[in-house]
Amino acid sequence: MATTGVMRPGHVQVRVLDMDESIHFYGNVLGLVETGRDAAGRVYFKAWDEHDHHSVILRQADSAGMDFIGFKVRDRATLEKLDADLQAYGVKTERIAAGDLLETGERVRFVIPTGHTVELYAEKTCVGNSQSNTNPDPWTAEAEHGMAPIRFDHALLYGPDIDGNLKLFTEVLGFYLVERVLLEDGKSLLAIFISCGHKAHDLAFVRHPEPNKLHHISFLLQSWEKVLRAADLMSMNRVPIDIGPTRHGITRGATIYAFDPSGNRFETFAQGYETYPDYPTKTWTFEEVGTGIFYHDRQLNERFLSVVT
Amino acid sequence: MATTGVMRPGHVQVRVLDMDESIHFYGNVLGLVETGRDAAGRVYFKAWDEHDHHSVILRQADSAGMDFIGFKVRDRATLEKLDADLQAYGVKTERIAAGDLLETGERVRFVIPTGHTVELYAEKTCVGNSQSNTNPDPWTAEAEHGMAPIRFDHALLYGPDIDGNLKLFTEVLGFYLVERVLLEDGKSLLAIFISCGHKAHDLAFVRHPEPNKLHHISFLLQSWEKVLRAADLMSMNRVPIDIGPTRHGITRGATIYAFDPSGNRFETFAQGYETYPDYPTKTWTFEEVGTGIFYHDRQLNERFLSVVT
Amino acid sequence: MATTGVMRPGHVQVRVLDMDESIHFYGNVLGLVETGRDAAGRVYFKAWDEHDHHSVILRQADSAGMDFIGFKVRDRATLEKLDADLQAYGVKTERIAAGDLLETGERVRFVIPTGHTVELYAEKTCVGNSQSNTNPDPWTAEAEHGMAPIRFDHALLYGPDIDGNLKLFTEVLGFYLVERVLLEDGKSLLAIFISCGHKAHDLAFVRHPEPNKLHHISFLLQSWEKVLRAADLMSMNRVPIDIGPTRHGITRGATIYAFDPSGNRFETFAQGYETYPDYPTKTWTFEEVGTGIFYHDRQLNERFLSVVT
Amino acid sequence: MATTGVMRPGHVQVRVLDMDESIHFYGNVLGLVETGRDAAGRVYFKAWDEHDHHSVILRQADSAGMDFIGFKVRDRATLEKLDADLQAYGVKTERIAAGDLLETGERVRFVIPTGHTVELYAEKTCVGNSQSNTNPDPWTAEAEHGMAPIRFDHALLYGPDIDGNLKLFTEVLGFYLVERVLLEDGKSLLAIFISCGHKAHDLAFVRHPEPNKLHHISFLLQSWEKVLRAADLMSMNRVPIDIGPTRHGITRGATIYAFDPSGNRFETFAQGYETYPDYPTKTWTFEEVGTGIFYHDRQLNERFLSVVT
Repeated sequence: MATTGVMRPGHVQVRVLDMDESIHFYGNVLGLVETGRDAAGRVYFKAWDEHDHHSVILRQADSAGMDFIGFKVRDRATLEKLDADLQAYGVKTERIAAGDLLETGERVRFVIPTGHTVELYAEKTCVGNSQSNTNPDPWTAEAEHGMAPIRFDHALLYGPDIDGNLKLFTEVLGFYLVERVLLEDGKSLLAIFISCGHKAHDLAFVRHPEPNKLHHISFLLQSWEKVLRAADLMSMNRVPIDIGPTRHGITRGATIYAFDPSGNRFETFAQGYETYPDYPTKTWTFEEVGTGIFYHDRQLNERFLSVVT
Repeated sequence: MATTGVMRPGHVQVRVLDMDESIHFYGNVLGLVETGRDAAGRVYFKAWDEHDHHSVILRQADSAGMDFIGFKVRDRATLEKLDADLQAYGVKTERIAAGDLLETGERVRFVIPTGHTVELYAEKTCVGNSQSNTNPDPWTAEAEHGMAPIRFDHALLYGPDIDGNLKLFTEVLGFYLVERVLLEDGKSLLAIFISCGHKAHDLAFVRHPEPNKLHHISFLLQSWEKVLRAADLMSMNRVPIDIGPTRHGITRGATIYAFDPSGNRFETFAQGYETYPDYPTKTWTFEEVGTGIFYHDRQLNERFLSVVT
Repeated sequence: MATTGVMRPGHVQVRVLDMDESIHFYGNVLGLVETGRDAAGRVYFKAWDEHDHHSVILRQADSAGMDFIGFKVRDRATLEKLDADLQAYGVKTERIAAGDLLETGERVRFVIPTGHTVELYAEKTCVGNSQSNTNPDPWTAEAEHGMAPIRFDHALLYGPDIDGNLKLFTEVLGFYLVERVLLEDGKSLLAIFISCGHKAHDLAFVRHPEPNKLHHISFLLQSWEKVLRAADLMSMNRVPIDIGPTRHGITRGATIYAFDPSGNRFETFAQGYETYPDYPTKTWTFEEVGTGIFYHDRQLNERFLSVVT
Repeated sequence: MATTGVMRPGHVQVRVLDMDESIHFYGNVLGLVETGRDAAGRVYFKAWDEHDHHSVILRQADSAGMDFIGFKVRDRATLEKLDADLQAYGVKTERIAAGDLLETGERVRFVIPTGHTVELYAEKTCVGNSQSNTNPDPWTAEAEHGMAPIRFDHALLYGPDIDGNLKLFTEVLGFYLVERVLLEDGKSLLAIFISCGHKAHDLAFVRHPEPNKLHHISFLLQSWEKVLRAADLMSMNRVPIDIGPTRHGITRGATIYAFDPSGNRFETFAQGYETYPDYPTKTWTFEEVGTGIFYHDRQLNERFLSVVT
């Protein structure tokens, strides 16, 4: 079977400071579709063109940040095998019962070397992308409600031991290294961009002293023109833009970074390239890291390295 | 490992009537990069952003059409396993020695139920996408030489037994059915679009009385604006356009069909969606097949069903 | 004063067969903004980014077509002068009282050599483009309601004596000839594209045996991506598309022709070039008229020359 | 006649520090077409789609900046009339003989209240836009050589007495005020954007203590995608980007500011709106000037107000 193991990032649970404000932001400004609320007060969203029940879960808390990120695996047998592989590798795993997240099967949860909580799951109710699977139109009205991303795409996480992450994700979970940024010594890793499929990144890590930090969660738009539209909507809605519209050298994405009302950074981007595991890894030297991150400015802004949640 | 088995369509060998004219067309008008010529007189091309040595091979012949399409598999062990699986399934396979195609390892060749010749291979020299893998720019001058597709993307083939193809590709080769078109009876298949990864189609088949026919080979462009640019270049170079720019309902691609100097149809397209094997299959009813194929015109043109090579 | 005389096409009155259906079409599918209805049952619309009260007036009638097209002139003195100039040239003019069209001043009406009724007027209430003139955003929600053109842009009219029109519009009304198409004899005019400002055409005529016919009224979109969006919306709403998305050679517009529910052809287009009266006139020979009209197909379709209202 | 008086900005003479480096920059990176060199060592360029002999003249000097900006008027009689009108208004004018600039007729030169030198001229040789005026294609290879703007579009100039400029340009030269920015007092002008045709600005001024300063000269691109392409080319060629890609609130342009090798700021932009003299003037309050200038960031950067040449 050509697609096996881990398929894609399937959900992320984000902490927000004010739920009402956040529901408005994620639903009407970012333009996700609300799909449910649970007994714990969590609110569930999906991008309009996603089929599974949810990809973003909001939880009200005293501090912003990410609780966990979950990856959907190919099937139940894969989940069991990967759990066993993780344990064999020395990772302690925990089972979260089906139903803990709405419409979601049992999850295997573990902490990765950078301190982030990661989950695997095989089952989530397919609720469809808001249209029939018979003779569908290419898009619906929801594709123009707010920024209206196509999908939750990836996350960039900050923490100290990204070498440990790289080893875990490539040796146990079937990811491969697409791009990397080196430190001044020309050997140590500053950042890694890893994929479990064709995307230039399904997950990325930057070396950072503090563990378990979120740099941004990312949403895919259809085109560079939709990136301009998103930037316009951000300004209309007084969303603080970090940087952009601009281009990443790394992964080639055409992008904006901005902040949700709680200070969590998010990205809306388009383009980028598709890759395969037999393609050569791309390397960015320390001197060119600015160009790699912000291709047009060719220098990092202070916020990129310091503001995380 | 997340990406296993068959990875992607890696090459297609096309018959052309006049090699000089075709070299000019594929190199300067379509805008592929010539990478070699072999003792048999075949000429090899790749798209600028592809890494492997070639994806299109031209062979001079008395009639146009496709000799074979080849898929790259994950590694040598996969090649052996799939060969064994094919034989176990009852498909007769043949080995083509490494080096028969330039810079290409051993190939496993077989004929599929629609009469087309398909190959699997695990090795082809990585020649790179015309730039360094260290601190690369997002594109190079080659990205603007002719229509300059990013990659050879897929092929649409015509033949009688597409049910047999569907069974073979899904049960043995790990593909899955992304979209399908039904005949008047609401049950029989008129067309199938199958994927071995995230693409909405890596291969497609339409039911047709004559076996082993080529409808089109397809090349991916970066954006809808590049589709307009391609159409303009076609007109500047007197390339006969079949239809487009337009939209497909099926796979959502924004597209042009046109003909190479030998009468082989090719497609240049952008957009479309990405998919996963757990997504629901989309179905087009016979009454809406026109909308499925040409979303804007909502009817087939006569050529779509009749002109093949 | 740099802009004097005739400024722009300001309104067109179109005959429709069913008013309710047409109100839905022009308001929700094409996406104009309804601004009023008068005692005669006429319904008024403007494009979202237009400032004057209306640019399209619908009148219910037994046959489709155009009643008249009106051009806004710089001021009241210009209106008087042009009326006098027209009469001096031998054109009989008529005054239509202020208020006959809602929010519109007195109009000078006359019939041009091709039999079409043309009007000049200096005053129409400025109702604004749906947002404040203080600190405005670049667009509003109305910019995404239906196809949402930016403005009524021009019309293409069919009739016999286009030479007479050319003389009248250039010698009396200050237009200039931007592009022209010649007949087989290499001298006679098949079509003319004339401008009163920077637009590649504010008005165009094609030679045709029957007088006073409408080929299409045209609406400007923001971008080629909006042209694709418009084509998608046409298909979603079962609007019959004549041709497109495609490119015009003449004026370079990226375009779609389609039909309103009464059979009146309309165009939604983007791009094209801007011009000035000192620029050289472009000429299309009869052999290349197909390329001039439909740049990608390089041949006329039968409908272009025969279907008018 | 609908277009009279001043037609458009026709040329700008820019001082550069190193001519060889500048020829490479303007010719290969910005992508203008070199059209001549004169005895004084000046080098002439035009945008690919412009018809007149030149629009940008480079002069080697010890300091960067703009020598003068010239506007083409409708004809010789207009030139004489405007000269007389200027003198009657109290502006001292000077005649520069035909031939002083290559292929250019006599010029009327004067200094405006902000200290800038402005010229009017009626004649410049039409050299064409690099293709035939018979059956032309929509673009040529030159449209993809460097950033390849369509035209020199406007300039933004800095100086103290912008009120004097506004009066001169609107009362004598036929311009009209399209947008304005107010100072803290809600009455005084910080900036004005004026047009002599349909463009949202043919010229703009910002109040600044020092006279005769250049903020930027501006070049029009075809689309927002071409803006991204320009930004990519800037980075590939190590052109210092000031800001962008971003959006202006004022005029709605989608834009990049960057610097030529001598430190002269230039703009490459697309979109924006078209206007007419009867449209209402748009006003930006002092609190929203940041949003007006840089719509996405909603704040000025320090350079916008301080770096001029």
